[in-house]
Amino acid sequence: MTPVATLQQNTAATGSGLASAPDFASTPGLDRILRIVGADLERVNRVVLDRMQSPVALIPELAGHIVAAGGKRLRPVLTLSSARLCGYEGDRHVELAACVEFIHTATLLHDDVVDESDLRRGVPTANAVWDNKACILVGDFLFSRAFEIMVADGSLKVLRTLSAASATIAEGEVHQLVTTKDLSTTEDAYLEVISAKTAKLFEAAAQVGAIVAGQPEPAERSLALFGRNIGMAFQLIDDVLDYSAQQAILGKTVGDDFREGKITLPVILAFRRGGPAEREFWRRALEEQRLEDGDLDRAIELMHRRGALVETVERARHYANSALRCLDGFARSPIREALGDLVAFAVDRPY
Amino acid sequence: MTPVATLQQNTAATGSGLASAPDFASTPGLDRILRIVGADLERVNRVVLDRMQSPVALIPELAGHIVAAGGKRLRPVLTLSSARLCGYEGDRHVELAACVEFIHTATLLHDDVVDESDLRRGVPTANAVWDNKACILVGDFLFSRAFEIMVADGSLKVLRTLSAASATIAEGEVHQLVTTKDLSTTEDAYLEVISAKTAKLFEAAAQVGAIVAGQPEPAERSLALFGRNIGMAFQLIDDVLDYSAQQAILGKTVGDDFREGKITLPVILAFRRGGPAEREFWRRALEEQRLEDGDLDRAIELMHRRGALVETVERARHYANSALRCLDGFARSPIREALGDLVAFAVDRPY
Repeated sequence: MTPVATLQQNTAATGSGLASAPDFASTPGLDRILRIVGADLERVNRVVLDRMQSPVALIPELAGHIVAAGGKRLRPVLTLSSARLCGYEGDRHVELAACVEFIHTATLLHDDVVDESDLRRGVPTANAVWDNKACILVGDFLFSRAFEIMVADGSLKVLRTLSAASATIAEGEVHQLVTTKDLSTTEDAYLEVISAKTAKLFEAAAQVGAIVAGQPEPAERSLALFGRNIGMAFQLIDDVLDYSAQQAILGKTVGDDFREGKITLPVILAFRRGGPAEREFWRRALEEQRLEDGDLDRAIELMHRRGALVETVERARHYANSALRCLDGFARSPIREALGDLVAFAVDRPY
Repeated sequence: MTPVATLQQNTAATGSGLASAPDFASTPGLDRILRIVGADLERVNRVVLDRMQSPVALIPELAGHIVAAGGKRLRPVLTLSSARLCGYEGDRHVELAACVEFIHTATLLHDDVVDESDLRRGVPTANAVWDNKACILVGDFLFSRAFEIMVADGSLKVLRTLSAASATIAEGEVHQLVTTKDLSTTEDAYLEVISAKTAKLFEAAAQVGAIVAGQPEPAERSLALFGRNIGMAFQLIDDVLDYSAQQAILGKTVGDDFREGKITLPVILAFRRGGPAEREFWRRALEEQRLEDGDLDRAIELMHRRGALVETVERARHYANSALRCLDGFARSPIREALGDLVAFAVDRPY
């Protein structure tokens, strides 16, 4: 039985039963890393299930839904494998990886409210099933739980890293909000947004692995930067996939960002490179939010015409290469190779 | 210049300028406590203003609005005066009181989304001015900031106390959500809700004062229980004031709880003691949310007829008396007397 199968079985008991959600175990290219940290990840899943319990039944119900749908577990895997890369053999990384996943899950719950999106990863978001109020409050609960787990761990350095990351994430989310529907958003502003809202947690996740392993500053900094780079690559590809026909074929939603007026790099590039008629289209669709049938197809077509998607993928590859270079200082080992797979996956994944 | 006047002057610069909001300094009966902790409170206000800053301008704007409207500062005053009662003479209580206020402010921001209320304390809620998305995310930011402040303080005991309180608050808010519109909610369930969503932060606020002062366990427990009891009294009175004609005369909103179908003690008592026609009224108004003109007046009239408001105030007085007894073990002193004023205010306040 794979770790994730176990998780799904357990969460099915909470009533969500989303057995068809994409999961880590079924992800091609990640089997090497899973062979190394799979047992740890199974323990993380148990901690997650255990620590989301509450006498208030709605909390495990709703949290179970989003955890079951919760995808690829990249962030906790980063903590686990970063600790392993540093030769760590204790147990602290398991609880802290769960804590990283809780922060991520809380963000997802609040993001669902924020985005008013109906679908996330092809399954109904928690919001489509429960209402906004519950999502906000259960998110707050998971976030507080994350801090309780950290405090129980007892390392002020870990606490400093993850509380600063949490503040940065929230700052990035607000920053994203104020750039929404604003086509004057610069590439730099966009990169600041994704660095804060996404890359920061990847960075902290990897860094925490180094901290529990008691690594010296340079190694800790390398792993933090590794996490940051993989996070940047991951988000850039995420933004491409929202305009991907392939994604649609796989039954995932596309166009969420478009409908919400999110200004991502593919949009910035297509807008900047487009002629007057194209710019007019982007303004109507994204700034004025006057959407017509066929607009998403036209947006995708314009992005292809202007090379915006290809260019965004290239930027992602650049961050991926930077991530790989961050591992240079570590001795060659199966886990170092496997972390390379993780980097490749961040860029080449189909969803 | 009073501390709160200073705060208002500062926050006016952020564009909110809610000079007419009720504030601590103008509250009758609290001048004794303010003479003792007023200077500390002024420092707390400066920390609050300082730590809500962010390059993302919307964050201080929105947070400044709610902090300026933010009422009575009872929770940070509890931390400050509890530390003083224990003879503490350092500085840590100031940062930690700000942290307690941040947790409270974050809860208010999320509660505003949750409650869909248009008015809080007679001024437009942040939500009426900015939208839900911003409130959730700025709340998350303040919450994360609170943890950063605690981590900078460095006491794991304080961190344990406040992270556990935060999880309990969120749990209580979800619990309240599931009892909404449910007239079968028992008195015990109601008491559990307010104990978690309100009293827990009062408890933690007072306890943190004892912790920084390095008090032995029994004194710490007494102050925690003092905070808990004052919090219970405070919330019971809050629930009464929502049906108070006096409140309406003062220009505050009444009936928010009624319109939202919140099941508070006055409702539980009036429903339980009412005849069949009365119960039918409560079911229509609160469970089915079919509101008609004059319903709020009728609700208030039924509560008076069934002694529900008087009884709720009596319960509040019971908790207030319990709070006072928690101070028995501390030597008589001006701050102990002044804490008595705080207890009296929790029960006798007009808003």
